[in-house]
Amino acid sequence: MRHAARPTLGILGGMGPLATADFYRRLVQRTPAGSDQAHLPVLMWADPAVPDRTAALLGEGPSPVPALVEGARWLQRAGVSCIAVPCNTAHAYVEQLSRATGVEVLDMIRAALEAAARRAPGLERVGVLATRGTRLTGLYERAGAGLGLAVVQVPDPVQKEYVDAAIRAVKRGGDPAGPEQWIAEAAGTLKEQGAQAVVAACTEIPLISGAASRVLPLVDSTDALAEAAVARLWKPTAPVRTGVRSG
Amino acid sequence: MRHAARPTLGILGGMGPLATADFYRRLVQRTPAGSDQAHLPVLMWADPAVPDRTAALLGEGPSPVPALVEGARWLQRAGVSCIAVPCNTAHAYVEQLSRATGVEVLDMIRAALEAAARRAPGLERVGVLATRGTRLTGLYERAGAGLGLAVVQVPDPVQKEYVDAAIRAVKRGGDPAGPEQWIAEAAGTLKEQGAQAVVAACTEIPLISGAASRVLPLVDSTDALAEAAVARLWKPTAPVRTGVRSG
Repeated sequence: MRHAARPTLGILGGMGPLATADFYRRLVQRTPAGSDQAHLPVLMWADPAVPDRTAALLGEGPSPVPALVEGARWLQRAGVSCIAVPCNTAHAYVEQLSRATGVEVLDMIRAALEAAARRAPGLERVGVLATRGTRLTGLYERAGAGLGLAVVQVPDPVQKEYVDAAIRAVKRGGDPAGPEQWIAEAAGTLKEQGAQAVVAACTEIPLISGAASRVLPLVDSTDALAEAAVARLWKPTAPVRTGVRSG
Repeated sequence: MRHAARPTLGILGGMGPLATADFYRRLVQRTPAGSDQAHLPVLMWADPAVPDRTAALLGEGPSPVPALVEGARWLQRAGVSCIAVPCNTAHAYVEQLSRATGVEVLDMIRAALEAAARRAPGLERVGVLATRGTRLTGLYERAGAGLGLAVVQVPDPVQKEYVDAAIRAVKRGGDPAGPEQWIAEAAGTLKEQGAQAVVAACTEIPLISGAASRVLPLVDSTDALAEAAVARLWKPTAPVRTGVRSG
């Protein structure tokens, strides 16, 4: 690719792989391109063996930082303009990645909260459905404070029995009906605490958030990151070559 | 990634981008992994500006070969074990890519026909829904001959008014209801010619093949490529680290 002329998005993915595939699909769908050729060039590094982020943040597993830095450096050397990391929990490490590479890493957390504020005008209290790792980092609380938003989390037993269990179920594959209902229950506990909207703040959750979106206005962190990438990199171009053809 | 220890799949994609995202999703879904960490590592080069393959094959546009070779070399240097090209028409060039890089390129055409033979036992005549470029290359006819299968194509007016139009519509985005019906009509003309099964032989078609699959047993070339990649690279591994966690 001619990077100088064409901004290229780097995707540091694989956490998990299905969420990464979902992110790439949403990126394509949200790009207002009229032909294949007008879409963003993408380079993707997806190593599902990056150590579990939540386990590391809980002090129960190895750090994912060496693997993430390896991936980010690889994208940097390939000449990407900026990097999207479609994993909320991994945002605990994005400042390190940005420092290690000098490449901008898009802020999925801020993008998701800004999308929630657009979705629910007058928003003051926003619920977050996230991994225990993301909760521990306080990423949403800090970003919310910067935007004047109070962030509400689910009670601990709900985290464990509904949210954690649902995320695990998606990563494992299988019937999504049960997990979808658990996420709706969890959204109900956020509503009881006064949340006016909810952020699906783990990239597995949008895959099972249909029922929850009938409980509260729901914003999808994967979508928000895709929109941020398009806003950052995509520009309309003149039609290229012979126009849209097939194959 | 530790390539020596862990076979890595290279995806040479972007033709089109939505089909590439669909391929990656199917790859993940067809991998019998019990956790994120057990999935295949993937490196993806997706440059949607690769010149249109059909236009090149019709002599109406520039060759996609230089761009494809650039992408394949880049994947080779990154150490991938083999390359998947989720675009049927681009298979006109895969021998060149393989020679230029020394890296195995998975054969989507053969994989799709073999999947059709498994899907319809006793298969002798198989219909193919493809771009004009793929038809021109005779890729399916040659691979079919090697497997003892007669390949049937739709009549020219059906190609132009239904198949080409439907593929264009998917690449453009928008309501898929019309294109899905056109593909079903095209499948009907294959059935009239004695086809006992049909291959959705353009990676855009599986996105709109629901109605056609009620006309004839339908095999999806994207799925067949995903299955070929899993069969070629994936091996069960011992559970890693602390098991499946979240985020």
